[in-house]
Amino acid sequence: MERLYLYDTTLRDGQQTQGVQFSTPEKIRIAEMLDELGVDYIEGGWPGANPTDSAFFEAAPETRVTMTAFGMTKRAGVSAENDDVLAAVMNARTPAVCLVGKTHDFHVSTALGITLEENLDNISRSVAHMVAEGREALFDAEHFFDGWKANREYALECVHAALNAGARWVVLCDTNGGTLPVEIGDIVRDVIASGAPGDRLGIHTHNDTANAVAGSLAAVDAGVRQIQGTLNGLGERCGNANLVTLIPTLLLKEPYASTYETGVNPEALVNLTPISRQLDDILNRVPVKQAPFVGASAFAHKAGLHASAILKDPSTYEHVDPAVVGNERIIPMSNQAGQSNLRRRLEETGITVEKGNPALGEMLSEVKAREDRGYTYDSAQASFELLARKVLGQLPAFFEVDRYRVSIERRRNARGEVVTVSEAVVATIVDGQKILSVSESLDEAGNDQGPVNALWTALAKDLGKYQCQIDDMRLVDFKVRITQGGTEAVTRVIIDSEDGEGRRWSTVGVSANIVDASFEALVDAVTWRLMQVPPAQALAGE
Amino acid sequence: MERLYLYDTTLRDGQQTQGVQFSTPEKIRIAEMLDELGVDYIEGGWPGANPTDSAFFEAAPETRVTMTAFGMTKRAGVSAENDDVLAAVMNARTPAVCLVGKTHDFHVSTALGITLEENLDNISRSVAHMVAEGREALFDAEHFFDGWKANREYALECVHAALNAGARWVVLCDTNGGTLPVEIGDIVRDVIASGAPGDRLGIHTHNDTANAVAGSLAAVDAGVRQIQGTLNGLGERCGNANLVTLIPTLLLKEPYASTYETGVNPEALVNLTPISRQLDDILNRVPVKQAPFVGASAFAHKAGLHASAILKDPSTYEHVDPAVVGNERIIPMSNQAGQSNLRRRLEETGITVEKGNPALGEMLSEVKAREDRGYTYDSAQASFELLARKVLGQLPAFFEVDRYRVSIERRRNARGEVVTVSEAVVATIVDGQKILSVSESLDEAGNDQGPVNALWTALAKDLGKYQCQIDDMRLVDFKVRITQGGTEAVTRVIIDSEDGEGRRWSTVGVSANIVDASFEALVDAVTWRLMQVPPAQALAGE
Repeated sequence: MERLYLYDTTLRDGQQTQGVQFSTPEKIRIAEMLDELGVDYIEGGWPGANPTDSAFFEAAPETRVTMTAFGMTKRAGVSAENDDVLAAVMNARTPAVCLVGKTHDFHVSTALGITLEENLDNISRSVAHMVAEGREALFDAEHFFDGWKANREYALECVHAALNAGARWVVLCDTNGGTLPVEIGDIVRDVIASGAPGDRLGIHTHNDTANAVAGSLAAVDAGVRQIQGTLNGLGERCGNANLVTLIPTLLLKEPYASTYETGVNPEALVNLTPISRQLDDILNRVPVKQAPFVGASAFAHKAGLHASAILKDPSTYEHVDPAVVGNERIIPMSNQAGQSNLRRRLEETGITVEKGNPALGEMLSEVKAREDRGYTYDSAQASFELLARKVLGQLPAFFEVDRYRVSIERRRNARGEVVTVSEAVVATIVDGQKILSVSESLDEAGNDQGPVNALWTALAKDLGKYQCQIDDMRLVDFKVRITQGGTEAVTRVIIDSEDGEGRRWSTVGVSANIVDASFEALVDAVTWRLMQVPPAQALAGE
Repeated sequence: MERLYLYDTTLRDGQQTQGVQFSTPEKIRIAEMLDELGVDYIEGGWPGANPTDSAFFEAAPETRVTMTAFGMTKRAGVSAENDDVLAAVMNARTPAVCLVGKTHDFHVSTALGITLEENLDNISRSVAHMVAEGREALFDAEHFFDGWKANREYALECVHAALNAGARWVVLCDTNGGTLPVEIGDIVRDVIASGAPGDRLGIHTHNDTANAVAGSLAAVDAGVRQIQGTLNGLGERCGNANLVTLIPTLLLKEPYASTYETGVNPEALVNLTPISRQLDDILNRVPVKQAPFVGASAFAHKAGLHASAILKDPSTYEHVDPAVVGNERIIPMSNQAGQSNLRRRLEETGITVEKGNPALGEMLSEVKAREDRGYTYDSAQASFELLARKVLGQLPAFFEVDRYRVSIERRRNARGEVVTVSEAVVATIVDGQKILSVSESLDEAGNDQGPVNALWTALAKDLGKYQCQIDDMRLVDFKVRITQGGTEAVTRVIIDSEDGEGRRWSTVGVSANIVDASFEALVDAVTWRLMQVPPAQALAGE
């Protein structure tokens, strides 16, 4: 088996995606996900160019992965030792460093405005400096394929300059994303024929013609042994090669599965779908249903012909087993499959329902009707559990909400400063007694936290005999999406809550009114918490 | 130049997409779009299997495209003339008919439960019957690639049975989507070597490994002369080969551009982006930003290095000219952007700032400081423009907001029903005059639309002398996400607005309070609209 290395650039090229801006804690969480998956390198960002990137390297988690800082080859006219861009990259103190440099003559003259010789010198000296400082050096050969087509001799000289200076890897980059797979294969073969060893070459593709995965595979077929890519194909313009697609392709499909080994443990593939969706969660993006391997539709068999054959043998219409990549089969046409799916889901929440129980059909149509109105139960497990218990008659009526009122006012205070104040009044009924509670929404510094927070504070302030059960509860996340409920756009709110025992649960609310949707999710959150401890027991503990 | 035929199956395989169900008028509109684009065949559906498909063929528009009905080869034990499935397909009266049949021995025994000879006979007789009835016959060889790997002899026999019976085309289908491009190329070459002429072979791929486009190109390289695909890559599971990607690849990129001609007029490529978005409109889907060629991010240059080079020459970071496919270049503002990016961005909004003007530095640090607090200017172009004009002293003080108040109340009405009512009061000052306006937020059916809508209605109700300028303005989208502003979680709201002239613009607001954040974005939206017409001119037009 030959070793193939995976280099992830989600935190660097992935951050070039339009609309994506990771915070430092988000970068740390993504690095931990990549470590769990088993990639070989994490390119964490460009220290010095970006404050969050510098902060990430300072706080970077301990992982088995080789942490890599990204930067640029030195400028002409300055020594590598005195180049401030290189110095910032060195200061990140990562074991590996990846420097991007020009290899296309047109870019050397047009974008940099220096001579071809100066550029070669910049590559050599920058790489040599990193090596002298004890770093594993990578060289990203920018625009390599376009460069090779324009001036093959020069492009190859750049590659060899980096290799001769001690670069562990030279990564051939199709920066503009326009090179088709067959061309990539041909050009890689020429590079190897020129004396560059394949096990020191990498490939970096973009998806501008939807060929980023195919181009990466063509480069591996031609001899490279490192692939650069990103989770969910994030990246500049149309994105980079999608590692979430490449990894199962390399591990599960021939000729790759029996030719190469990677750092990814085949058993870790079950994390692939959850990891892909967690990233979408961090970005507050709707997961792409049609995504290969991990999309909700990737193993959905809608055609009647397909669905009936799948029942006989899943391999009739599936190229891999969905369970292997942590995904699941969906047969939307078959009510039977729906019910067995549902029973499995109920078992996960500790509810056992016999096969054939008519409550299953009722539950399924209730879930479907609500999903048509914009609800989603994929992530809001706690709301799903409440819905199921309600259909089964297992949901106690803990409390009732009589009414609520929230007001948000922006005005000038006595000192003439513009301030915003939110106030909420909630009237609940517990054991026939009306409880009225009111709350403002201020953080410790006296700043207003908005209407949802005000509502939560009022609701959680006095819930009569249940109060002791929710005292340790707090809201930890709040996600809002505008979605389609029937023909109207509605707001979907998902609230994540946590309690003192570290339990975390998610609930959902849907309405045209964002405050109403939030309130529904809040009430579910409290109700789910009350389900966990029977009231009598909670009271006995008082 | 060799002729390459494009066969669109958006209306048949595309309808297998999870969540997609076209109505007959929608099918007609899509057929007209395909005609405008210039594909050769439209597969309109399966008459008899689907009522909307039968209705579509009855009402199908007159096009230059060869309309094709889809069906299945006859069952064993019935003559082609007496097979009711074939009869329904014939009744659609299309000039061409495409019949799917098995070519994988395992499927013949497992899914059909008949002998291999019976299946060959079904293929021959069904195709011959269509030809005898004067139709152009196509045979979709289902699971051909898996079949070839399992039993090469038999798979090839099926192909030749269809060809010998008079099929104009035999389409090699990778039904499960698991065959990689290199394998597709090798197998197609073997089929041609067996005596099947390439100009009677087609390719049908799925995107289960993200290789549908690459697999189609590999088949063309190996000799097939028909490609089947769908608009926007719709289709079963992960979708079919995306014609919106394949068409510009074939027309603009080598070796295809100078080797093949298709029915698509190169000048019709400017319709590509609008057609792709119109289809999303019909499906009520958000267009995929990272889609090759047509996505909003396909020519967005976020990296500072890229943006500065683009200013010198767009070909430095673009593989094709966005205008050719009806798309446009975007240089978003972001944390990564430098001053050149900023100048370019300013020029797009009609603001010229000399290189070296200190206002650029001030603007950049203002943008960065705001992005640290949670703002994003990638998509909120209008808010970016206002911020720039403010730094340059070019932003008139149109109006001032003195205060606002919103209340949301949920209670029982006189009939005992639970209702929610939102009310907003906004006090603005125009030319020293205070204007107070109040509004509820009800849609036509009397349902509450929430606090943001109430605020918008109150703000847009009376803005004194500016009222005529915002009368035609409406909110078209509203996006919310919780993000990190410094150390605190804050809410970011992006609002898309539109006016009567079809202009569309986006603004952003950030606050711990979602209503405050929304209000900030609303005020920006109104202010940007007021910038477009100088007040004097607007007043003169009254």
